[in-house]
Amino acid sequence: MRILVVNPNTTASMTRKLQAAASRIAAPGSEITAVNPDFGPASIEGYFDEAFSIPGLIEEIGKARDADAFVIACFDDTGLEAARCATLAPVIGIGEAAFHMASLIAAKFSVVTTLSRSIVPIEHNLAKYGLLSRCARVRAAEVPVLALEEAGSGARMTIEREIEQALTHDGAEAIVLGCAGMTDLARDLERKAGVPVLDGVACAVSLAESLVRLGLKTSKRRTYAAPLAKSYTGEFKRFSPGAR
Amino acid sequence: MRILVVNPNTTASMTRKLQAAASRIAAPGSEITAVNPDFGPASIEGYFDEAFSIPGLIEEIGKARDADAFVIACFDDTGLEAARCATLAPVIGIGEAAFHMASLIAAKFSVVTTLSRSIVPIEHNLAKYGLLSRCARVRAAEVPVLALEEAGSGARMTIEREIEQALTHDGAEAIVLGCAGMTDLARDLERKAGVPVLDGVACAVSLAESLVRLGLKTSKRRTYAAPLAKSYTGEFKRFSPGAR
Amino acid sequence: MRILVVNPNTTASMTRKLQAAASRIAAPGSEITAVNPDFGPASIEGYFDEAFSIPGLIEEIGKARDADAFVIACFDDTGLEAARCATLAPVIGIGEAAFHMASLIAAKFSVVTTLSRSIVPIEHNLAKYGLLSRCARVRAAEVPVLALEEAGSGARMTIEREIEQALTHDGAEAIVLGCAGMTDLARDLERKAGVPVLDGVACAVSLAESLVRLGLKTSKRRTYAAPLAKSYTGEFKRFSPGAR
Amino acid sequence: MRILVVNPNTTASMTRKLQAAASRIAAPGSEITAVNPDFGPASIEGYFDEAFSIPGLIEEIGKARDADAFVIACFDDTGLEAARCATLAPVIGIGEAAFHMASLIAAKFSVVTTLSRSIVPIEHNLAKYGLLSRCARVRAAEVPVLALEEAGSGARMTIEREIEQALTHDGAEAIVLGCAGMTDLARDLERKAGVPVLDGVACAVSLAESLVRLGLKTSKRRTYAAPLAKSYTGEFKRFSPGAR
Amino acid sequence: MRILVVNPNTTASMTRKLQAAASRIAAPGSEITAVNPDFGPASIEGYFDEAFSIPGLIEEIGKARDADAFVIACFDDTGLEAARCATLAPVIGIGEAAFHMASLIAAKFSVVTTLSRSIVPIEHNLAKYGLLSRCARVRAAEVPVLALEEAGSGARMTIEREIEQALTHDGAEAIVLGCAGMTDLARDLERKAGVPVLDGVACAVSLAESLVRLGLKTSKRRTYAAPLAKSYTGEFKRFSPGAR
Amino acid sequence: MRILVVNPNTTASMTRKLQAAASRIAAPGSEITAVNPDFGPASIEGYFDEAFSIPGLIEEIGKARDADAFVIACFDDTGLEAARCATLAPVIGIGEAAFHMASLIAAKFSVVTTLSRSIVPIEHNLAKYGLLSRCARVRAAEVPVLALEEAGSGARMTIEREIEQALTHDGAEAIVLGCAGMTDLARDLERKAGVPVLDGVACAVSLAESLVRLGLKTSKRRTYAAPLAKSYTGEFKRFSPGAR
Repeated sequence: MRILVVNPNTTASMTRKLQAAASRIAAPGSEITAVNPDFGPASIEGYFDEAFSIPGLIEEIGKARDADAFVIACFDDTGLEAARCATLAPVIGIGEAAFHMASLIAAKFSVVTTLSRSIVPIEHNLAKYGLLSRCARVRAAEVPVLALEEAGSGARMTIEREIEQALTHDGAEAIVLGCAGMTDLARDLERKAGVPVLDGVACAVSLAESLVRLGLKTSKRRTYAAPLAKSYTGEFKRFSPGAR
Repeated sequence: MRILVVNPNTTASMTRKLQAAASRIAAPGSEITAVNPDFGPASIEGYFDEAFSIPGLIEEIGKARDADAFVIACFDDTGLEAARCATLAPVIGIGEAAFHMASLIAAKFSVVTTLSRSIVPIEHNLAKYGLLSRCARVRAAEVPVLALEEAGSGARMTIEREIEQALTHDGAEAIVLGCAGMTDLARDLERKAGVPVLDGVACAVSLAESLVRLGLKTSKRRTYAAPLAKSYTGEFKRFSPGAR
Repeated sequence: MRILVVNPNTTASMTRKLQAAASRIAAPGSEITAVNPDFGPASIEGYFDEAFSIPGLIEEIGKARDADAFVIACFDDTGLEAARCATLAPVIGIGEAAFHMASLIAAKFSVVTTLSRSIVPIEHNLAKYGLLSRCARVRAAEVPVLALEEAGSGARMTIEREIEQALTHDGAEAIVLGCAGMTDLARDLERKAGVPVLDGVACAVSLAESLVRLGLKTSKRRTYAAPLAKSYTGEFKRFSPGAR
Repeated sequence: MRILVVNPNTTASMTRKLQAAASRIAAPGSEITAVNPDFGPASIEGYFDEAFSIPGLIEEIGKARDADAFVIACFDDTGLEAARCATLAPVIGIGEAAFHMASLIAAKFSVVTTLSRSIVPIEHNLAKYGLLSRCARVRAAEVPVLALEEAGSGARMTIEREIEQALTHDGAEAIVLGCAGMTDLARDLERKAGVPVLDGVACAVSLAESLVRLGLKTSKRRTYAAPLAKSYTGEFKRFSPGAR
Repeated sequence: MRILVVNPNTTASMTRKLQAAASRIAAPGSEITAVNPDFGPASIEGYFDEAFSIPGLIEEIGKARDADAFVIACFDDTGLEAARCATLAPVIGIGEAAFHMASLIAAKFSVVTTLSRSIVPIEHNLAKYGLLSRCARVRAAEVPVLALEEAGSGARMTIEREIEQALTHDGAEAIVLGCAGMTDLARDLERKAGVPVLDGVACAVSLAESLVRLGLKTSKRRTYAAPLAKSYTGEFKRFSPGAR
Repeated sequence: MRILVVNPNTTASMTRKLQAAASRIAAPGSEITAVNPDFGPASIEGYFDEAFSIPGLIEEIGKARDADAFVIACFDDTGLEAARCATLAPVIGIGEAAFHMASLIAAKFSVVTTLSRSIVPIEHNLAKYGLLSRCARVRAAEVPVLALEEAGSGARMTIEREIEQALTHDGAEAIVLGCAGMTDLARDLERKAGVPVLDGVACAVSLAESLVRLGLKTSKRRTYAAPLAKSYTGEFKRFSPGAR
């Protein structure tokens, strides 16, 4: 089975990290390909960046005609609904994947994300998915996404501190790491925290595999119906509907 | 005061209709300009089309440096949060405007929109704004946006029938018209319905005027903070932050 | 257009302050009149005082037959629903006005009110309007309403301190001042806070103007229907239905 | 123990009916007195009438200094919070009493009230009490309160029909009668319906007895604190705080 | 009237304490019998222990054919729904009883329970009953149930400290004691706290008396319908349906 | 990897059906064993039967010391929380599994279960998991569980009819089959319905595999902590804590 992991930002080093992380946990027989658009923001921090990464993300999905499932590897689940309209194959966001998986092993979880500007977008997603009541609190470590790529940024220590706070004050029973860039920290942080620490990339790849194995595809009734065959003007014509 | 009404789709006839509707209700001294992007979808029906209209919408906002406020003239409030990050000036979506105004004159309202694929996106917005409990029901007349532009499409009669259903079955005390293209039907429909019928375009222009007169601007703390000065790659560089 | 601002308590100095504040922000062509009943409590702090101010408030509304809209200038939105039954003209409470306006410029707001006995009534209102999820927290400065009228009461400093707490601990992106008597503090507090600080009086006057300009009136279907023509006994006969 | 049942409207025949109904179910040793104010509306149908019945209601509570508990015998729980501020003795509304009791014997209940204008006020109460999720639906029989007093009004049959609808369509497992004037219909309707049919008057008297026996009194911390000793102006001075 | 108080754990000393406490507050004419199963856990701390106490609890209910009402004397309301299926007589849990009664005398209450593993089960119950919004916070004193039985365990002081925290930080206006074993502490703690402190055992007995006096029985429509006459295999056959 | 599927009722033919269904979708390398307790009810229809199946279910979990994950194969997710306390290995209920998976491929789903007495228990679960807002409606076909085992019972046709109703009236975009006994109908029903039809057994096995592959185990902090080492009396001693 072929799973396309789309990093919706344009930072190739992060895409490589995602390729490695996703491959590490993929089931035998799953073939993982991680890609990123060639235009859009270098990282996604909040609503503005999201807007400019979605067309590129959809374009990548449109190109991958033989993929059996798609993973959107940004914790804000950028463009998730639009992507679901673009293909019949399942599309999983790493944020929703981590929320659903955490709900299966803990009564309450807290999220530790990068910047506080992402707290409300994540809360909106939790509410949209229905899982807000399962989340004790969304916390920001105030570490920008790209700082996670730099050695010596102190990012890990700051994240550890937030996890401690979540366990002491939020009543959290598990921790969800709120950024694709934290994917390689999960195991270490779990050892220190003594509770499950979930990485959305791993969760999403595994859920995508499950959906494919179960033969479940995105419903085309109502919300995720294929786009109407209407005209698109200008640059974006190349993304116009019709794929799959 | 200058108010820019952005039609996020590329259908110029709809932009002209918006210019007329907005000007008709604008307060003395308000100068209305309606524009649309030169790329993107001809109409917005659901999540897919939304994704491709946001970059063009943000570009229009970025160009209008002297505007005192912005109105996003699509009932899905396409790109509203991204637009708020892009400028300090107030940005009002016509959906949210109608929901807030309806809440001031009726205990419960129903929405009548175009296609059923838009029901869930509108419900998500209502939940995000907090106003889901004020909405009795979101109904779809199953009339595509562009059919509203055509004489003889029977669109008006279908909408009237949904309004009757809402009054009889939903407990609705007011009706919100769920599409920018219905702006010129509101008065007529209100006369027939015997309850307030709200057009989001009028509501949004008036709320934008209010915010400007009160000197209220978008908060730049957290969610709508200006984008970080990070690199944008490819076509979209022209939309990169820095404006205003 | 004529807007009647009703201060539902009997403190004339506060009525004069309201007259000034409302006039300052009114649009050209709006004529503001602020009044108060000649019976009822000197200030409204909680549910008991509310009960005794409503009949006087309704009486004032009944006398103002030529008003185009009404503003109820108590942050608890005292008697708002009863007032809406009494007239076809729009009636806006300053609490709801501030909540709705804050929702248009910030993802989350905190309220700073006078006494902690008003926290639950305000939370009940937020829930009734649907906007509870938009409010990060309702805080009380423990300053009685009438202390706001006295120089040297230290009231302003206490309020400033609560605003700081709201920004640091609640995740608030804007502040709503929770008392009509704080109307003349808003601008100063906003300068210090660095986020929008909303005064309900200004918000309500502006929303009232909007509704009038848009030709929107209170729905008379169901909840706000005109009272049935039934007999009223005793003192209150003078308030009996029939007006407008 | 002395329980004062206050009918907040001025219709003495209804007060007599309440006296009889409450006495019938009172525990041995409970002394029931039903009273009504000498001013205010003849019946309470919606928010407007509520406003004018509260001062009279509070006056009756203030006069009954030796009562151990109070019952407010209007299904809208008119003035409940204000009354709780006025006395340390427990105050129970017949609406809330029925909702709480129904929750103990059925997973879901429906309410059958008089006019549709009361649906939203009742829903607001249910939300305020927290019990909205326990209520399958609030239905109106479109029978005015005073019609219940008239033989041959057909009121009972209309109510029966709504109960049938509730059982067939709402998933209701019990029925709450939504008007004090229906108190003498409960037993008969229950026999026909085959599910519990609750009368708020009986429920409230019994809950009042329970609270008194348990020595539980209204909390005076925050929301129901005794009114501040501030000046009341005009006619209403006679209701001014100080009692108990 | 006969009320059976079932202690669902097997600790006889606690059953005796319950017998005493329930008898103390019972109305004249009520006959209280407290029992416990002869198998199951010595105390109930969380979901695991609950599971093993329910069959014994149901067995006790099945044996008491002449009881007019049942009280389940564990704060988690162990097996409440199953018990309601087993009998037509009203069944009241001490947790739900305390929540409902607290809602009648305070706008917000906090719960002080034993161990933090019980916080989520109690929150789930509050949500199921609908009363989560009335609860300011569920707090754990980290005192195991059986420590409440031991003199010198310091349990009371720890509980007092949590109550103080609830009043200072949660906005609580009343306190609900979250364990049957705290029944004899309520009066003392109330004197110190200065707000109502509710013991579920007393509340449940009194509510059971009310329901019996009002002739209200558990609805047999849908959720609490008598079990179908299907075969039960093995040890549990003795609990098989048929009782009452 | 070893996955134990526990059928919590005592009907062996259903256990064999579960063994077949689970094996059919299991990933290569997964070894499925389906078991049922030797005491308890023949089928589980509502809260009463649930209570008597949990001890047997926990006993089966306690015996399977080498299982890597557990599936509870009753749609009510009988004893799910208790089971999570009993083992560190992941435990998945087929109800929750289907709800989570449906949320990944459809904006709204409806549930079609057996008897209407199960509607409220399922709604309670949906609320507990947080996913109530994702469920358009829980419908009952009024077909008892064991009728699904009988040829010629007309069960399938009744279920088809409910699915049609859900698509026409609820706005459902996918269907969740609300009973373990429907596991072999899913594919056929999906073909007819034209939207995804989810079987909880398949979903749960796949999620269990995912959790094991990701190395995620049940959090032992707070809610699902291992039971305290307290004494258990009587028959149930054999289930006493200590396992794993």
